[in-house]
Amino acid sequence: MIKRYDSDKIKQLVFNIYQAYGFSETQSHKVAEMLIYTDLHGIESHGVQRLVMYDHFIQNGKIRVHSQPEIVKETDVSAVVDAKFGLGQLNGIYSMNLAIEKAKQHGIGIVTTRDSGHYGIAGYYADMAAQQGLIGMSSCNSRPAMLPTHATKAFVGTNPIAFAMPAKPHTFIFDAATTTVPQGKIEVYNKLEKDLPALWVAKNGNEPVYDHTQTEDFKALRDPDATVGLAPLGGVSENTGSHKGFGLGIIVEVFTSILSMGNISTEITPEDLSVGPCQSFTAIDPAIFGDKEQIINRFSRYLQDIRELPAIPGKTIYVHGDKEAAAYADRKKNGIEIDDRTLEEIESIASRLNIDYTNYVA
Amino acid sequence: MIKRYDSDKIKQLVFNIYQAYGFSETQSHKVAEMLIYTDLHGIESHGVQRLVMYDHFIQNGKIRVHSQPEIVKETDVSAVVDAKFGLGQLNGIYSMNLAIEKAKQHGIGIVTTRDSGHYGIAGYYADMAAQQGLIGMSSCNSRPAMLPTHATKAFVGTNPIAFAMPAKPHTFIFDAATTTVPQGKIEVYNKLEKDLPALWVAKNGNEPVYDHTQTEDFKALRDPDATVGLAPLGGVSENTGSHKGFGLGIIVEVFTSILSMGNISTEITPEDLSVGPCQSFTAIDPAIFGDKEQIINRFSRYLQDIRELPAIPGKTIYVHGDKEAAAYADRKKNGIEIDDRTLEEIESIASRLNIDYTNYVA
Repeated sequence: MIKRYDSDKIKQLVFNIYQAYGFSETQSHKVAEMLIYTDLHGIESHGVQRLVMYDHFIQNGKIRVHSQPEIVKETDVSAVVDAKFGLGQLNGIYSMNLAIEKAKQHGIGIVTTRDSGHYGIAGYYADMAAQQGLIGMSSCNSRPAMLPTHATKAFVGTNPIAFAMPAKPHTFIFDAATTTVPQGKIEVYNKLEKDLPALWVAKNGNEPVYDHTQTEDFKALRDPDATVGLAPLGGVSENTGSHKGFGLGIIVEVFTSILSMGNISTEITPEDLSVGPCQSFTAIDPAIFGDKEQIINRFSRYLQDIRELPAIPGKTIYVHGDKEAAAYADRKKNGIEIDDRTLEEIESIASRLNIDYTNYVA
Repeated sequence: MIKRYDSDKIKQLVFNIYQAYGFSETQSHKVAEMLIYTDLHGIESHGVQRLVMYDHFIQNGKIRVHSQPEIVKETDVSAVVDAKFGLGQLNGIYSMNLAIEKAKQHGIGIVTTRDSGHYGIAGYYADMAAQQGLIGMSSCNSRPAMLPTHATKAFVGTNPIAFAMPAKPHTFIFDAATTTVPQGKIEVYNKLEKDLPALWVAKNGNEPVYDHTQTEDFKALRDPDATVGLAPLGGVSENTGSHKGFGLGIIVEVFTSILSMGNISTEITPEDLSVGPCQSFTAIDPAIFGDKEQIINRFSRYLQDIRELPAIPGKTIYVHGDKEAAAYADRKKNGIEIDDRTLEEIESIASRLNIDYTNYVA
């Protein structure tokens, strides 16, 4: 069952948990802020639901609590960061702040970060730049998940692309896996025992897996040797544009692992403590191209014109960020959504760390 | 009927035509080089087949022969170019060279160009950077073609994204419309009286148009008020990722018309001589991130690993640029492919300009 909880209270609980792990006050605040931002924007798959995964990695040493990211190469407009397996969120915030500083000084900043950890939603980092009036972009690689067009084995990660730009009445935020759907969406359908509504998973390269009872096939998504994988955006046939999603996945790999000389998708496994995903962070100041206010107004008008187009009866035309803004307004007022299992996991972590959680989940 | 013609001879003929229009020797050489590059790489829809369209625009003044692009705003890493309705290819080459110079000096260059003209394949400009050891990107906007998810009227252009990066044995080149297919592909199927093999065109927002006999629907693709449009990459349903292709189309609009304060898609019509499409050009020097040779070698190994994955029986796994490299080898040796109608059009243009074309098409 899913219940609503006050976001400020849960944020305080997450803060306490991270302090108990040994993170500083500032670090714990950043992590709590990032995770609650995610839940407030309605992306429950990547918010506090992930605490248990991070807890596991903190305990087994895949996430190293006392690591500090280090700049290993830098120019006015770029940097390579060695994250030394610190917490993904902290590496992400550090790296995006670096990109933002460069953009403020020199117009553009591109940072690529290696040996990082799972950093949650890419859109958060893109939005960090937008909140300062800049264009923001972020991507990450992951273990093999996507089937290259015509391949029977996964190779490319789900490799999302996030892009944010200031707009009125709210920021335009695009955040999308280059697979048709991310792995988490499959898991949600499996948990609910629902059949998949489209070609999200394929076996032997092009045989759709829809039926939720095909549990062996869904399990095989986690097996790097299996002939099951996620369809790229555009499906598994060139006729539907499969090669486009596949190519976008490769481009993400360039900006993450290739330019940072970090681990490529096939080198990343949850088990191996000596490898970590790579991430990229870009900030661009629109002011280098023209009057920032005019540009933002023009963009806002463009988006509003799209919202006002004639629509399929009963359907709404959403611009990217609209659903998240509505979720934020709702959850800020009525609380964030946490399912019972996730709550139990959080309570169990808090107990182990001798944190009294009762007040926060009341 | 399609016949093969020597690429050097056709290039000379194109050069002569552009000189006759009044373009300089250098300009005419650049245009001929660009168009023949396109045919040599097997992208016949955008090569000399387009001469007749450009000829029409040169005659009616939409393309202004004596215009020179002008930089209206500039920083070390960026520029806005006012192309003043000059020939799209010349604007593109000028703008990408500017981005390349900035990348060589400062690591990154982003140029956005307004009041331009149709510039052919975006991949050419991205490849210009790759040929100099850089990462290249280019995009353009166009008149409304794409249906935003749930909309019944086209709004966003086909807005392609091109990305090129040096690799062995040949450059990685991604060049893809953010619609499932570009307009030209529909026209090819219509000409051949073939039904469309997938959801490329939709009526009333989500009704597929497959049948080649639905000529009124296909004609309506050119009518801005019609309820027919091209599906985004990812189709017309959120279940298949429609919102992702739609969002990528918006991002292209940002880098082209929004940042340059040029014409957005809905302002662009072929008839109006006072509006033109916008384009963006990015060059990034991989050396700002690390050892260029190591990066390229690592990327090449990554691509080769993809090619060597197990494939669906009878299918080949192509990496982006493989098909084009094979077409180039073939056409360089055996000639470029020109259909009879295109040849007649070229001959007719040459005749009008008093150019003796007989030697070039023998």
